[in-house]
Amino acid sequence: MSKKISMAVIRRLPKYYRYLKELMDKDVNRISSKELSQIIGFTASQIRQDLNNFGGFGQQGYGYNVSELYDEIGKILGLNKEYNTILVGAGNLGQAIANYSGFQKSGFKIKAIFDANPRIIGLKIRDLEVLDVELMEEYVKENDIKIAAICIPKEKAQQVADILVRAGIKGIWNFAPIDLHLPDDVVVENVHLKESLFTLSYLLNENEEATK
Amino acid sequence: MSKKISMAVIRRLPKYYRYLKELMDKDVNRISSKELSQIIGFTASQIRQDLNNFGGFGQQGYGYNVSELYDEIGKILGLNKEYNTILVGAGNLGQAIANYSGFQKSGFKIKAIFDANPRIIGLKIRDLEVLDVELMEEYVKENDIKIAAICIPKEKAQQVADILVRAGIKGIWNFAPIDLHLPDDVVVENVHLKESLFTLSYLLNENEEATK
Repeated sequence: MSKKISMAVIRRLPKYYRYLKELMDKDVNRISSKELSQIIGFTASQIRQDLNNFGGFGQQGYGYNVSELYDEIGKILGLNKEYNTILVGAGNLGQAIANYSGFQKSGFKIKAIFDANPRIIGLKIRDLEVLDVELMEEYVKENDIKIAAICIPKEKAQQVADILVRAGIKGIWNFAPIDLHLPDDVVVENVHLKESLFTLSYLLNENEEATK
Repeated sequence: MSKKISMAVIRRLPKYYRYLKELMDKDVNRISSKELSQIIGFTASQIRQDLNNFGGFGQQGYGYNVSELYDEIGKILGLNKEYNTILVGAGNLGQAIANYSGFQKSGFKIKAIFDANPRIIGLKIRDLEVLDVELMEEYVKENDIKIAAICIPKEKAQQVADILVRAGIKGIWNFAPIDLHLPDDVVVENVHLKESLFTLSYLLNENEEATK
């Protein structure tokens, strides 16, 4: 992949992947961009453009082979691999993430969970005992860990990120409500729940104004 | 607000709000778009454009009054009001959301929690007893509930959303991994965690390719 793909396209890929899975589950073998458009809500031209970024996949007059396209998008998303993952912060949100089997099934294997709170260290979440965050750097170095999910208060998040980067982490899934400063070879994906909720309240008020 | 603001602008507003709060906490009283640009990472021109959508707020040669701008953006986001909110689905993620005090402090008051699982109904989360989802429709109608956070499996999500809409809900914060079909007067904000994680794995692989 030498061409830089826009974030808007990248963010649509997981959605294609989800809808294609649903089609497979319904034993749909092939689908036109027009039919896909009706299901997924993007225009057919948008869909063709998006997929052309990666080489197209469709055949004139035939459409897309659903399971092939699913596999291809999976590969583009890197879901044909496994990722050794750790979780930092085993509070309510961290526990929810650790307990969600969907991530594990998609190849994101949570290998260890860390926390700084003595009351949480030692607890078992699934099959994993929560470890002292002091052990994190060494653990990441020695266990080929690629991804860290950070579910800790914002005050500690940059400091923890710095340690993770030093230890060799390449991707951070950040739930802390700050923007992390990271070197170019480390990617971050933020889940800022409060900002999502504030967006909802904006939309709610906008809609009420519009329908007055 | 008669003018339709683009989603890209709307999604930046909570970020402005967060950074302005940090500046206030550091006793910064005023800031130029240039200084704000250095902190927040958007260009100064982007910042001026964004804020001009709502009337500007800045003064030539003075910049922005931090606390005034914070209050104004809060109002634009609808954070000067309170929202009666319910939570549907008290599994791990639902419990994490119910336990996070930040939402309550921002005006999103969780009034009731519902679940369909007999083993979860009756549990106490914070001060709230988890109620049978069968009671949800009546509760929403009688208690002026505006927002529902949905943290349930995708198989039940549309059905629950239909009931909520019928009962008068105006905003849905949807954590279920599906796209809900809703009437125009109901807004939705999705948090699709798996799609976020897949975006991370895409970016991780793209970055590894680029630095090979």
